[in-house]
Amino acid sequence: MRNASGNGFDSSDSLAVSGAAEGTARLHDIPPSITPSHGDDSHLLSRIASPADVKALAPNELAELCREIRATLLAYGHQHGGHIGSNLGMVEATVALHRVFDSPRDRIVFDVSHQSYVHKMLTGRADAYLDPDRFSEVTGFTNPDESKHDQFVLGHTGTSISLACGLAKTRDMEGPNSGIGNVVAVIGDGSLSSGVAFEGLNNAAEQGGNLIIVFNDNEMSIAGDFGGMYGPLARLRASGGTAQPNLFNAFGLDYRYVESGNDVSALVAAFEEVRNIDHPVVVHIHTLKGAGYDGAGHVAGTSSASVGNVHEPDSAVSDTGVRPTSNVLHSEPWHSDHCNLSDHEPHEGQCEASHWQNPDSAIGKADNPRKHYGKMAMAALEPRFADEPGLVVISPATPGSNGITHEFRERAGSHYVDTGITESHAVAYAAGIARAGGTPVVATTASFFQRAYDQFFQEMSLNRSRVTVLDFLGGVSASDNTHSGAYDVAMFANIPGVTMLAPTSADEYLADLAWATAPSGATHAPDGPVVIRVPGEPLLSAERDPSLLPLTGGRFAAHPRPATRSHGDDGYRMLDWRVNQAGSAVALIGLGNAYPLAEQTAAALCADHGITATVIDPRQCSSLDCATLESLRDGHTLVVTLEDGQREGGWGEKVTAYYANHHVPECDAAGHDRNPRVLNFGADKEFTDRVPLDVLDERYGLTVHQVVESVTRCF
Amino acid sequence: MRNASGNGFDSSDSLAVSGAAEGTARLHDIPPSITPSHGDDSHLLSRIASPADVKALAPNELAELCREIRATLLAYGHQHGGHIGSNLGMVEATVALHRVFDSPRDRIVFDVSHQSYVHKMLTGRADAYLDPDRFSEVTGFTNPDESKHDQFVLGHTGTSISLACGLAKTRDMEGPNSGIGNVVAVIGDGSLSSGVAFEGLNNAAEQGGNLIIVFNDNEMSIAGDFGGMYGPLARLRASGGTAQPNLFNAFGLDYRYVESGNDVSALVAAFEEVRNIDHPVVVHIHTLKGAGYDGAGHVAGTSSASVGNVHEPDSAVSDTGVRPTSNVLHSEPWHSDHCNLSDHEPHEGQCEASHWQNPDSAIGKADNPRKHYGKMAMAALEPRFADEPGLVVISPATPGSNGITHEFRERAGSHYVDTGITESHAVAYAAGIARAGGTPVVATTASFFQRAYDQFFQEMSLNRSRVTVLDFLGGVSASDNTHSGAYDVAMFANIPGVTMLAPTSADEYLADLAWATAPSGATHAPDGPVVIRVPGEPLLSAERDPSLLPLTGGRFAAHPRPATRSHGDDGYRMLDWRVNQAGSAVALIGLGNAYPLAEQTAAALCADHGITATVIDPRQCSSLDCATLESLRDGHTLVVTLEDGQREGGWGEKVTAYYANHHVPECDAAGHDRNPRVLNFGADKEFTDRVPLDVLDERYGLTVHQVVESVTRCF
Repeated sequence: MRNASGNGFDSSDSLAVSGAAEGTARLHDIPPSITPSHGDDSHLLSRIASPADVKALAPNELAELCREIRATLLAYGHQHGGHIGSNLGMVEATVALHRVFDSPRDRIVFDVSHQSYVHKMLTGRADAYLDPDRFSEVTGFTNPDESKHDQFVLGHTGTSISLACGLAKTRDMEGPNSGIGNVVAVIGDGSLSSGVAFEGLNNAAEQGGNLIIVFNDNEMSIAGDFGGMYGPLARLRASGGTAQPNLFNAFGLDYRYVESGNDVSALVAAFEEVRNIDHPVVVHIHTLKGAGYDGAGHVAGTSSASVGNVHEPDSAVSDTGVRPTSNVLHSEPWHSDHCNLSDHEPHEGQCEASHWQNPDSAIGKADNPRKHYGKMAMAALEPRFADEPGLVVISPATPGSNGITHEFRERAGSHYVDTGITESHAVAYAAGIARAGGTPVVATTASFFQRAYDQFFQEMSLNRSRVTVLDFLGGVSASDNTHSGAYDVAMFANIPGVTMLAPTSADEYLADLAWATAPSGATHAPDGPVVIRVPGEPLLSAERDPSLLPLTGGRFAAHPRPATRSHGDDGYRMLDWRVNQAGSAVALIGLGNAYPLAEQTAAALCADHGITATVIDPRQCSSLDCATLESLRDGHTLVVTLEDGQREGGWGEKVTAYYANHHVPECDAAGHDRNPRVLNFGADKEFTDRVPLDVLDERYGLTVHQVVESVTRCF
Repeated sequence: MRNASGNGFDSSDSLAVSGAAEGTARLHDIPPSITPSHGDDSHLLSRIASPADVKALAPNELAELCREIRATLLAYGHQHGGHIGSNLGMVEATVALHRVFDSPRDRIVFDVSHQSYVHKMLTGRADAYLDPDRFSEVTGFTNPDESKHDQFVLGHTGTSISLACGLAKTRDMEGPNSGIGNVVAVIGDGSLSSGVAFEGLNNAAEQGGNLIIVFNDNEMSIAGDFGGMYGPLARLRASGGTAQPNLFNAFGLDYRYVESGNDVSALVAAFEEVRNIDHPVVVHIHTLKGAGYDGAGHVAGTSSASVGNVHEPDSAVSDTGVRPTSNVLHSEPWHSDHCNLSDHEPHEGQCEASHWQNPDSAIGKADNPRKHYGKMAMAALEPRFADEPGLVVISPATPGSNGITHEFRERAGSHYVDTGITESHAVAYAAGIARAGGTPVVATTASFFQRAYDQFFQEMSLNRSRVTVLDFLGGVSASDNTHSGAYDVAMFANIPGVTMLAPTSADEYLADLAWATAPSGATHAPDGPVVIRVPGEPLLSAERDPSLLPLTGGRFAAHPRPATRSHGDDGYRMLDWRVNQAGSAVALIGLGNAYPLAEQTAAALCADHGITATVIDPRQCSSLDCATLESLRDGHTLVVTLEDGQREGGWGEKVTAYYANHHVPECDAAGHDRNPRVLNFGADKEFTDRVPLDVLDERYGLTVHQVVESVTRCF
């Protein structure tokens, strides 16, 4: 399934899940008495049409509203998945924000905006959470097209302080005409580890003026439970906000601390205190990720206005700042083994832990491509750890989404590093490892790697660092607009010195990985960075059902390009393209995920039009195989490139340019022009947001019938 | 002049300088007795062939060595320009590093590595600084190809901690086999404001093990003299390193402070104390940028082993952290008005202040293109400030290099913001301003914008933020490999929603700026971000000498595309291409800086071959003018694209792909094929390092004779 979902994570994968072998829909576990229904006026949430309705509640109704919201989130999570953990932690804070501040005149910027479910419920969009039929009406992130209460689409991390500084700057420059009151950045749940967040902190005090930075500290703000900031932050919490060093003070910022970050009254009081403040201030609130989830799907804490008391006592924080146990409620831990809701792995990267990855309906389904091929790569690397001490896997957060399982990480020990949400650091760090003779493998999704574009250019490519990059979710997908990987080839393959591979089978993928990670100095080892585009759904489907590769039936997969260490010079042509069917008239070259389409098109051309096309798997997209392109001059009048990424700046147009700039005047023996025409199929230059993949494929002509039609029109 | 230089700043501009109307070479001002010469064994520096020679000196010889190095830097700066100020501050620290540590076994990573001149002198490369004839033997940054003592090419900022973490990781994983001892990151002179530096700090403590972070605090580490970190850092210095909040402690790091950062003995003692330390530690050294420069070219402080005493007393730091005066020595301030050495503007961005921009020989020369067109843009914006309170110019450091002068900034007041070296923040900040209805203009060089690639995608383009980007130094140049702008079109123009303009005259440049910055809601205002590629040398030359535009003589410049606010619908076609000469057979389309080449080629084709070519200025490179492309089908058999940037992923290949994918079967009235062939001229996908532009143009075929030859070969 690659349909869209609206819950704010890479939705192309949303209905496949790994791990649990069984599962049950658990909606019935939610006590019906506290699960508000759409249109049920007996419940508070159903009556909240805007923040004004939150302000109109009696003070003692706020806690009841929080309970309803929490129950709604749990039911929603069971059904749809999503970032439930972080939203459960933010229930009281969000209610308090809308109680105190006056959105949209007061501007609230959520970061990462997957923490905005409660905000959406309170700004006229509760039905999307209450009524499963209206699920698709809202996106998983804030979006100004959706509501005047949403400031930005913010799906990557850490930019809220900078954005808020900009809003505040204009307010201060334009004065009353700006129509802007308080500016509030809500940052946390991993975002604070991003470099741009620190750049923002450093500039906020510089700018001055009203700016309120709410730091949602759910103790998942850095890599795992460890990391440089963690100890000082833990001591800051333990001291009630008085201890030094105080990171925020160190950036010149005023500071307040709220220990009871799930006590709506305490939060209301804290926010009222800073409302209309005349200078930047950080309000550090200590929340509980997953607050109210007891592991069995029940709502905890409903008898109290606060669930803040479920925090472990901060006195349990040791001097080293390491908390002895998880901060996620597991009052019935045995449920963790059976319920998808337990997919909070508290010692993992924080972003991963913020995902309630999948709905219950996904339990027991086969792995999605990211997890499938991610696990495969880790399984290939792990046996090498014993003999290769310098082999290190680096994940800038979200390892679990890419099949880098908790179990693997435990076994890998120091061969695995989670750097937190810090792609820039992760790539530079890998370059450092490579320079020292180690073998780094950096893994995350294509769109997150955009954060490290400059490090790809400078530290990695200019320095010829032997870094292996596992590029997940590359290519066209039904993802949110913030997480699309349709731009990865244009990003990576145009950087000088980068080799980008697009394997089309598991065997080839593993051979590519072996080559890229060959020890420095090995025969034929690459002398610079190698990006491996991890196969997606079309290739995984073809591996599971070889009939989707009608010409080869996946047979060529048994003959991947040779890995470095098992071959001599003879036959070693790592970057050569592979002709899987020799034909005439038309050559179909299908890159990576688009390769099965090439075979399928060839089969249709043969069956319906009697054309035996040449079918080529280029296997990489950072250089051209000129010998193969030259060979096509004989007997081919048309060359078709197929790719599931953006055409502009992409791969296929390089083929077009090759023939245009290498025009030959002579004809072949039969008097035919030896300059084949070229057609390029790929994605338009556009953002797409949760559009089903089949719709996109149709839009871009990436279907058998459309390619066949275009081809036959040329003859 | 656009020849290469080796001093580590954008060398394409190195021999043009703004401002001073007169100047004299001042080499004679250096007392000859302390300026060592190449091969003169009576001086210490001439006898330093490697760090071992530094270790062999008697302790009392170190200060003398520092004096010689300082004199050498001053003489070198007069002759060649370069980052003299920061290197003057780092003389003692670098001597002490090589006295204490054992490079290359101990790894020293300089960040920004323009602070490495002294390091180069001590690692076998002193002759390049002593002997003007050997100037070109070293680059302006560290470079492993140049010396085993250089770890990385590091010309952008802030990655040293991450790189050092990687070196240390491999050492700790591989053990004694790694051959790596202490790992030292030397960061400062602006680098610490980069987000990636904070990501590195946060991960350093997490990793543990030996890692020494030398923070070179020359009080230029943040934007101007202000900024959030500044106050706490100033108080930290004033307290001798004992005050809280301590930023480094807040990241969980051990910390040492050295007030006398220009006292070689104190530094040797401090480094000896941390050598072989078993955990990460920050050694905060307080240095004096420009130490030893007295404004008249003399060497100050030669009678003392320390120049640390020239610091203003830290008690002068006010509670707000604002220092009353510059930290650059100006003992004879009247010299500042006459001497290029005074190009330290202490209230500017720190990176700019670290440049001793140009050699004395450049004094009095005309502005280079960056300064020329930068000043022009600021002059156009400044009169609008009074009526447009939301109009804000943002420079993530280095404003002066782009013509954003100190005087402009003073007058602009709050309409100008220097965010420090924080491109990610700057672009997100601009998106925030735009969202609030303001009008942000972000200016820096193309290669630095690589740091904000993700913010371009997410905060700016996906959010349709009306941000104007002034893209300086875009295109092929003789720059250092770290600063090349040859990749800017591939970076910007492939992002969905970005409009990228490439004006070809001052009038058009100003019209583009007016359009991009039109108030939100103005008729025809753009609805998203606009990147303006600031014209380079070929266009400035053509403006100064219209004979370089042989067809139009620059006449069309009087008819730029209409600016938004002066035109109605009629004739308003902002993104249309402009046909400057209607011809036949061949169409020459020259983008931006390559436009004069189109005219010159057309003139040669006419004179030598009787071909009247069509000549087109496309004026932008983010979309195609399909109507114009269609019109060329009649009467043209060849279309030539010319661009001074990378072909792959660039602009011209989009034209090629257009015709390939819009093939028409019919012939024109004369029976000619209506599908013109296309030839693309542009830069190869490669890094280039200080290669003269004429050499690159010849390499890429971007000369009149090569284009003419290619064209005539097609007929």
